[in-house]
Amino acid sequence: MTRKIAILGATGSVGSSALDLIERSPDRFEVVALTAAVNSEALADAARRTGARLAVVADESRLDDLRARLAGTNCRAAAGHAALLEAAAGEAELVLAAIVGCVGLEPVIAAVEAGRVVALANKEALVTAGALMTDAAQRCGATLLPVDSEHNAIFQCLAGSRADDISRIILTASGGPFRTASAEKMRTATPAEAVAHPNWTMGAKISVDSATLMNKGLELIEAHYLFSLPSEQIDILIHPQSVIHSLVEFVDGSMLAQLASPDMRIPIAYALAWPERMATPAQRLDLASIARFDFEAPDLQRFPALRLAREALEAGGAAPIVLNAANEVGVASFLAGRIGFADIAAIVERALDESDFGAPTSIAEVLEVDRMTRVRVESAMQAVCQ
Amino acid sequence: MTRKIAILGATGSVGSSALDLIERSPDRFEVVALTAAVNSEALADAARRTGARLAVVADESRLDDLRARLAGTNCRAAAGHAALLEAAAGEAELVLAAIVGCVGLEPVIAAVEAGRVVALANKEALVTAGALMTDAAQRCGATLLPVDSEHNAIFQCLAGSRADDISRIILTASGGPFRTASAEKMRTATPAEAVAHPNWTMGAKISVDSATLMNKGLELIEAHYLFSLPSEQIDILIHPQSVIHSLVEFVDGSMLAQLASPDMRIPIAYALAWPERMATPAQRLDLASIARFDFEAPDLQRFPALRLAREALEAGGAAPIVLNAANEVGVASFLAGRIGFADIAAIVERALDESDFGAPTSIAEVLEVDRMTRVRVESAMQAVCQ
Repeated sequence: MTRKIAILGATGSVGSSALDLIERSPDRFEVVALTAAVNSEALADAARRTGARLAVVADESRLDDLRARLAGTNCRAAAGHAALLEAAAGEAELVLAAIVGCVGLEPVIAAVEAGRVVALANKEALVTAGALMTDAAQRCGATLLPVDSEHNAIFQCLAGSRADDISRIILTASGGPFRTASAEKMRTATPAEAVAHPNWTMGAKISVDSATLMNKGLELIEAHYLFSLPSEQIDILIHPQSVIHSLVEFVDGSMLAQLASPDMRIPIAYALAWPERMATPAQRLDLASIARFDFEAPDLQRFPALRLAREALEAGGAAPIVLNAANEVGVASFLAGRIGFADIAAIVERALDESDFGAPTSIAEVLEVDRMTRVRVESAMQAVCQ
Repeated sequence: MTRKIAILGATGSVGSSALDLIERSPDRFEVVALTAAVNSEALADAARRTGARLAVVADESRLDDLRARLAGTNCRAAAGHAALLEAAAGEAELVLAAIVGCVGLEPVIAAVEAGRVVALANKEALVTAGALMTDAAQRCGATLLPVDSEHNAIFQCLAGSRADDISRIILTASGGPFRTASAEKMRTATPAEAVAHPNWTMGAKISVDSATLMNKGLELIEAHYLFSLPSEQIDILIHPQSVIHSLVEFVDGSMLAQLASPDMRIPIAYALAWPERMATPAQRLDLASIARFDFEAPDLQRFPALRLAREALEAGGAAPIVLNAANEVGVASFLAGRIGFADIAAIVERALDESDFGAPTSIAEVLEVDRMTRVRVESAMQAVCQ
């Protein structure tokens, strides 16, 4: 039986990996909609290869190009915000939400409110709008499947468990490029040093988040909403080899862990095939060759982002939105050479201290808090950097 | 809701641990029957503490003592083979089969044929009568829950999976006391050296089996029957810390692993509470304190028992019975100082080579092959040792 699927963000990293898997298992899927931000060429190519029925480019100026490239196919070309929402809430049974950033929030909630199975690769959906998303999912009968490797690991470990069986969950972290660096070394770290992640090849923003461990802090917040667990039942463990992607501890003292090669096609395939599994070309683990796993507790002194994320989670309301927006401005400024590595966390901490936003009651309010925080942080930073 | 439970072998190590858990969660269980081989005193104590309705001592000469000790209670005292079978196939919904050795086979199959949920702690049931047990379970609607820590780990990792999703299972082994020993050192190993297991405190027989890795070979055979997987989909991995109790690899490249402290109460509790979980007093894992896991491939040269067990599994029929019986005679002879450590595997290999038994079609035939093998091996050894 084929499953009707829509991919929001089909030309990005997660979207491309999903298309790779879908094209390897054409009998399992029927691609009904694909979307992209601006890359009409890659979008049209993907739509032709998969026989998609709807292709949406967010940037309306690319519509003519997209239409031309799809001439002679049965694929309808569309553009703009309303068309994005149509792709999200249309006929797909499974929606892979792989748009990066807060621009992905409205398509995600559209899919959730349509009661779809939503494979969630957009981090902002749970970090900035976690309560809205999970409330809507419950209200509308949607299922949220995490694509992020850590949350996907936990989801796999929880299969079939009751909430009462769970004692805590443990998110693993590689520790990033500064795991063993001195505080002094970290203060003078360059962008090139910060993006040199030991295990995964990723974009610059997320690589810096891995260096500060803010990435793990954001995952902590996501885990809270995804698995309905309070902060004190979510731990962080440094595991430099990044083979164990996360663990669950149960009330009997058992732990379950998910392990895999660092290949995003594995968690993506899990979400696409759930509740079954599908073959992937990802490399199998050979534990005898890997030979060794290490574990250590995270150092909250050298990695204050972890502490700040936990504080934002516990504060609730708009605090996670402020944390996320301030961090994005901070990381961009660090990558632009405007501030030092340690300033990222300092900027986030000040933004949280000065935040006075109430809990958002709509995605529009989430986006407004996000926008206001960026403006505030940016102007405060300009005042300091002048 | 309480679950009616019978414990076959209530005074042994697994039985006592189960009673400890049951007495900590009296609301979950109603003990309907307890059995013991000879220890009428411990049996009567347990029956009084738990309010059991039937207490059976296998040794009929202990019946008067048992009856006297249960005077004034509502617990009926009984003895002998028929009473054992009554306890196994009686009113219990869950039967914990914790009798050690081939003497446990008939009570286990009685429980299986009565369609019960059977928590299986008797290794011989699957090693020597695997096809009979699993066929009967399927025919009679019984559920086999493994209590052994490795198989319990795999059972936990498989929760909710389809057979088609499984790529292979990986049984972990500590490697025993001779993991890093030279072949020369192993040839001259004493019983005291062989029973010094690094992680678990166990009886002498099973400790020697851990030193030869025959223990893992027997588990390989059990896993084959329990999880319906061919030999080539069951691997062995040495993991000296014994924290990961086993793993499953799925077709997508994901692995799930179960981890826990070396405390048998954890897998016992899982079997007792399944499909839920229950609290245990077992120590929680602190991975940051454990700090390190190691993995290596097993050395089939120094540990021929692993190769022999795989050959017996692949030969099928009565070969696993011969393997098990010859190994028991060999281990007993080694512990008695009659043969050297390396002779254990040599004895097993010769017994397998000389075996001409067909596949057993009943437990009686299993017991007969077991008995004949012991006689043959014993007389061959006496001829050599004279």
